[in-house]
Amino acid sequence: MAAAAPVSPLAPKTRPFLPIIEGVRFATAAAEIKYKGRTDVMLALMDKGTQAAGVFTTSKCPSAPVDWCRSKIKGGKARALVVNSGNANAFTGRDGLEQAKHTAVLAAKATGAPQSEIFLASTGVIGEPLDAGKFDGLFERMIASARPDGILEAARAIMTTDTYAKVATATARIGGVEVTINGIAKGAGMIAPDMATMLSYIFTDAPIAAPALQDILSKSVKTTFNSITVDSDTSTSDTLMAFATGAAAKRGAPLIATASDRRLTDFKLAFHGVLLDLAHQVVRDGEGCRKFVEINVEGAASNIAAKKIAFSIANSPLVKTAVAGEDANWGRIVAAVGKAGEKADRDRLEIWFGDIRVAHKGLRDPAYSEEATSAYMKGEDIVITVDCGARGKGMATVWTCDLTKEYIAINGDYRS
Amino acid sequence: MAAAAPVSPLAPKTRPFLPIIEGVRFATAAAEIKYKGRTDVMLALMDKGTQAAGVFTTSKCPSAPVDWCRSKIKGGKARALVVNSGNANAFTGRDGLEQAKHTAVLAAKATGAPQSEIFLASTGVIGEPLDAGKFDGLFERMIASARPDGILEAARAIMTTDTYAKVATATARIGGVEVTINGIAKGAGMIAPDMATMLSYIFTDAPIAAPALQDILSKSVKTTFNSITVDSDTSTSDTLMAFATGAAAKRGAPLIATASDRRLTDFKLAFHGVLLDLAHQVVRDGEGCRKFVEINVEGAASNIAAKKIAFSIANSPLVKTAVAGEDANWGRIVAAVGKAGEKADRDRLEIWFGDIRVAHKGLRDPAYSEEATSAYMKGEDIVITVDCGARGKGMATVWTCDLTKEYIAINGDYRS
Repeated sequence: MAAAAPVSPLAPKTRPFLPIIEGVRFATAAAEIKYKGRTDVMLALMDKGTQAAGVFTTSKCPSAPVDWCRSKIKGGKARALVVNSGNANAFTGRDGLEQAKHTAVLAAKATGAPQSEIFLASTGVIGEPLDAGKFDGLFERMIASARPDGILEAARAIMTTDTYAKVATATARIGGVEVTINGIAKGAGMIAPDMATMLSYIFTDAPIAAPALQDILSKSVKTTFNSITVDSDTSTSDTLMAFATGAAAKRGAPLIATASDRRLTDFKLAFHGVLLDLAHQVVRDGEGCRKFVEINVEGAASNIAAKKIAFSIANSPLVKTAVAGEDANWGRIVAAVGKAGEKADRDRLEIWFGDIRVAHKGLRDPAYSEEATSAYMKGEDIVITVDCGARGKGMATVWTCDLTKEYIAINGDYRS
Repeated sequence: MAAAAPVSPLAPKTRPFLPIIEGVRFATAAAEIKYKGRTDVMLALMDKGTQAAGVFTTSKCPSAPVDWCRSKIKGGKARALVVNSGNANAFTGRDGLEQAKHTAVLAAKATGAPQSEIFLASTGVIGEPLDAGKFDGLFERMIASARPDGILEAARAIMTTDTYAKVATATARIGGVEVTINGIAKGAGMIAPDMATMLSYIFTDAPIAAPALQDILSKSVKTTFNSITVDSDTSTSDTLMAFATGAAAKRGAPLIATASDRRLTDFKLAFHGVLLDLAHQVVRDGEGCRKFVEINVEGAASNIAAKKIAFSIANSPLVKTAVAGEDANWGRIVAAVGKAGEKADRDRLEIWFGDIRVAHKGLRDPAYSEEATSAYMKGEDIVITVDCGARGKGMATVWTCDLTKEYIAINGDYRS
């Protein structure tokens, strides 16, 4: 293992306090799956009746735990979540699925919950067999030590090469009753040598039925986790799940059966905020990053077209290296818009860096000031706005980080 | 301007001698468009009746010269080609198109050819106005000095940040008569700060009618220039043209009207070979590259699916940095196959580095030797072969280079 990396310069300056959510407890353990001297297994225990929703990687080569979760999420109920770091149990063949199943069997035995309510994730090295035997007897000990206030330790246990634990929290009112939403996340895309997986788990005491929770989750993910990119590499294990214990019902919160229920307005906003906060934290821990970049595209033929253009810009190595070099190189943005394949009008294109318009009607802005733009590019947070000139109402925002020599160093060093 | 970069370590060790092609002459000049002390304009003069074909960037924000060429290529005839380096005349608005037109008017006047038979390209800085007035009177002087053996100088005049001139040649027989094919090219994708454009021009004395030439060119480009990637960034100005003077008809070569003519078999092979040679040379001059990488995908549902998977691997920053780090990191290849979105069977996936099978039936190969694989990865030419397990007959080969810290240094340094 490489020495621990210093905390990302883009890490949030403060970490919020996460209140307890009734109906969920956390335990962590050091199973020495790969790492020494740190926790590498987390167990979340949920009260009976907890509703579950999830979205998973679109990879055609998903990990064994993703296969497991996808088959179980249909039931909509969760009693336990087991996540290990250090080994992704990905590309491990039939044995990988067996080890995932064995992990679930052990967790079901320890918790007394049905296997169909056990969810799994593994993150770490690809292609190494995972020995689920390491979990034999472990879950019983973890259950004995599980605590309602253990979520920060849980966030730490699922880290691989993350340089800081990612947590977020918010409250919302449903029918006049306050509910809490806590979330944790790890790692952007395929972060570091052999390390895969973006994982995020959201917990709430709101009494929301699984189909409604799934609907809220699926919608929220589009403009949060599915609008970020570090290096355009999708992992085999990406997982985002939400668990609603429903404990707030005891305090009078109404049971919500459908996502269209108007009483969810405030909750949806808060839920989206937690996801966006975590998604941004994932970008802010991108390898070697020094700039946080927001890309807004307007005037596209549709929102989908706008997102495609925005990702074309966000994933362009030339745009990302220009930002790293503090270079307001709008020519590369023009090229990225052009290659996206969506409708754009070269002679109507407008580009802003922050509030500075650098390109106007298909030309360098007559008022362009190299000095002002250079000063802006020295900042830590860079906002790029593009009107692609297609005269449509489509718009999208995506977030990424810059591409630096450190990214190459981190990802090009030999596996060890 | 940065100091001249050293020649790429992957540059071909020898350069072929290009024989004269009857019916075409070359001239170069130093117009000081941006560079000092080097040639930056090339003029190719073709005899009356020369047939022309071309393929151009798919960018939705093409440069003004690309717009010009696309509108003229329908005529199928060419008398002159003007290429300048140092300024791309891209994102220069209506004035850009005016300057392109003015360049063509000057070339038409100097050569006596119709404007519809003048072809243009500009490569260099994006967004800077091009002053076509610099060409006033220049073409007349260039015509006076044009030489049939000037193709190497032409290749040099169109370089931007290329570290070597790219030329290739081949002969073929049509109806028993030998014909020659010469080609030149510059720059892969968007090579360096503000420098855009891949340009390539092929000249032959074969008597092939424009529609047939276009057909051969369009087919050949798929498995050559459209199968390479340096950094996935498509330029606003990519141009590939072919010119057939037909002079070999005087030596008895038959006039060929359609691409399906069987007498073209040998010519098509040779033509494809010249394009492939030039395309490889472009990759071998990718910024900061140290490894030439061939990626073969087999067993895909279709050839198109195979190419999509191959490009997903070739454009993955994680795969490219692993190659730079001499790391046989097949986990990243699995991830790249998975994210391509094409049919693949994780449990049938096979991966080879050279002749070494590293993954077999969805698992690390039982016979995997870290030592042997590491030794292979130290080589300069790396071949990665993937059977994606979809049990189809689709296959494709693409070429790329590794991604090194030097790429970041070249592209992240401030424009100067």
